[in-house]
Amino acid sequence: MTSDSDALVPETRVLAVASHVVYGYVGNTMATFVMQSLGCEVAALNTVHFSNHTGYRQFKGTRATAQEITDIYQGLCQSYLTDFDVMLSGYAPSAAAVEAVGAIGLDLQKRAEKKPGSFFWVLDPVMGDQGRLYVSDDVVPAYKKTIHHADLILPNQFEAELLSGIKITSLHTLAEAITAIHKIYSVPHVIITSVQLSKLTTSPTTPPPASLTIIGSTTRSDGTPRLFRVDVPALNCFFSGTGDMFAALTVARLREAVFAAGPDLRTTKSWVSPDSVQATDLPLAKATVKVLASMHSVLEKTLEARGAELTATAQEVSVSAASGENDEEKRKRDYLRHTKATEVRLVRNVKYLRSPVIEFKAQEWRE
Amino acid sequence: MTSDSDALVPETRVLAVASHVVYGYVGNTMATFVMQSLGCEVAALNTVHFSNHTGYRQFKGTRATAQEITDIYQGLCQSYLTDFDVMLSGYAPSAAAVEAVGAIGLDLQKRAEKKPGSFFWVLDPVMGDQGRLYVSDDVVPAYKKTIHHADLILPNQFEAELLSGIKITSLHTLAEAITAIHKIYSVPHVIITSVQLSKLTTSPTTPPPASLTIIGSTTRSDGTPRLFRVDVPALNCFFSGTGDMFAALTVARLREAVFAAGPDLRTTKSWVSPDSVQATDLPLAKATVKVLASMHSVLEKTLEARGAELTATAQEVSVSAASGENDEEKRKRDYLRHTKATEVRLVRNVKYLRSPVIEFKAQEWRE
Repeated sequence: MTSDSDALVPETRVLAVASHVVYGYVGNTMATFVMQSLGCEVAALNTVHFSNHTGYRQFKGTRATAQEITDIYQGLCQSYLTDFDVMLSGYAPSAAAVEAVGAIGLDLQKRAEKKPGSFFWVLDPVMGDQGRLYVSDDVVPAYKKTIHHADLILPNQFEAELLSGIKITSLHTLAEAITAIHKIYSVPHVIITSVQLSKLTTSPTTPPPASLTIIGSTTRSDGTPRLFRVDVPALNCFFSGTGDMFAALTVARLREAVFAAGPDLRTTKSWVSPDSVQATDLPLAKATVKVLASMHSVLEKTLEARGAELTATAQEVSVSAASGENDEEKRKRDYLRHTKATEVRLVRNVKYLRSPVIEFKAQEWRE
Repeated sequence: MTSDSDALVPETRVLAVASHVVYGYVGNTMATFVMQSLGCEVAALNTVHFSNHTGYRQFKGTRATAQEITDIYQGLCQSYLTDFDVMLSGYAPSAAAVEAVGAIGLDLQKRAEKKPGSFFWVLDPVMGDQGRLYVSDDVVPAYKKTIHHADLILPNQFEAELLSGIKITSLHTLAEAITAIHKIYSVPHVIITSVQLSKLTTSPTTPPPASLTIIGSTTRSDGTPRLFRVDVPALNCFFSGTGDMFAALTVARLREAVFAAGPDLRTTKSWVSPDSVQATDLPLAKATVKVLASMHSVLEKTLEARGAELTATAQEVSVSAASGENDEEKRKRDYLRHTKATEVRLVRNVKYLRSPVIEFKAQEWRE
């Protein structure tokens, strides 16, 4: 175990724009603590204020309007509080809000234009998952306009399909989708955060995949991708907020890897490594490996704690059944109990964020 | 240096109700990270959403209405997300909001009434400082009604005067004020978070005090106070958010001290130690000593960083002056620059939160 200060990444000021929930960990509630525990100063601009994440299928709270998001940023500007090294933008509750967040990114970029590499924008284009859009239709074109300005985007498989216009059904189409994203949006870094390659390569009757694949790429100067992949064992459970955890860890670890690459890279626009750097030696690849190591440990610990909590609370359900709940009420209560038990166990597992035990490897990926 | 997990307090779920700022550290933005870094699960219910703290003399953002605060809590209730061990309530933007927060505390207390000690309410009655009220007049009676139900309150000297009706002008009147607070509000634990005793004991022409005194008390069963005091060197600088930092650290350290006192105390209503426990052996006194050690180190580090930042940014002012700012604009910009440089340096000094170096001592205090 390293000491506290050894485990911190280089000083980094992050503007994090995403949702806030009171209970549990998604959006900024996840990302803020993750980045803070690695030593980043985080300014959290919250786009919604909800009681809990939407995976509970019920929540209360309010959404920020585009104007409110813009006003808050104006508040920062008028007091000269815009010295951000990185922006991490995630969920925004409307197309207008996506545009408002985009305008913030552009303004920060403009302020930094005389100092290449001094501002870096990580954009998580939160639109949907598993073939289903969970934002309104007009959010998609709003993202398509915005992504042109981002330095790194983190779509999942479904979002990568939406952005590239290419249905990912094979390794070949996956490579095509990443190439298309680099090209259409001039975005230098891409990570597709979860691809079930086994689904692509095996018949639909095979059992659920034993591993997930994360694919990333940093462009070469001619715009072609440098593709790497990391395979991780799949955990047989759906967790909310893992996309936000991935993004937050990536901000910290990419910054660390870019600093470790020497003084030239961090003063290069968008931190794009020289063409001589191989895919697996990219800071993006090195960061991804550390990110996935932290995530795998925290999620394993979450699964353990989940089991213990479900055992401990099983009695509540029989008590409530005895108190006259009908079957539907009982089912609903049980669903909520499982959802709560599956909240990522973050604060007590901070050592896995700070000092990941590296078990995974980036591989160069050629078709 | 202890390892990460050694430095965590017993598992604690906290509902934290206070303000949120995007940039810098006050209210929940301070309290959430402080408690999380000591291992507490924190549910942050934000009462305002501001760009920055009001010490900048300008900010943008929105305030939550009492109804919005109540709605969020209803959202938690409907999904059975109310398993809190502690509530920490701080700034609320109106009398109605103070009452809404009070109703949440009461409801959580009611849910816990069959398990004494399973819920503990720390209330910071944020009303004003240095003789000046910074909330509207009707907030004062709203707090007076609410405090009856709290387990620990953390007024500053001015707030203690408002609540006790006693002007603190001497050691004698200070003891009277604490006795009155215990009696009027039946509140078992009180800490007055900053008293300038030297102002009370010396003539008005003496230089600023070299030390601050923190006075605390837990009642005996007959309602009389058990008073302790801790003196700490005063730093010659005003920091925003230190009250919130004090409150957050106190939540974690009091919980730790109560657990360390053995299994009986934590199943005792309001964690009130038996009459045989001396003032300096109270969990409240032990917690206060650790809290102040952490704070003193973090604020010393903040002062160092402040000096470095002011040196580094001094040039900006001459540049802006050269660009044609008039004197008033220059003064304002310089004020904002100083305020920003004085933001508490939290995330990179987390080791002082986790592993305080104890230099202070609680003394029993008798008149």
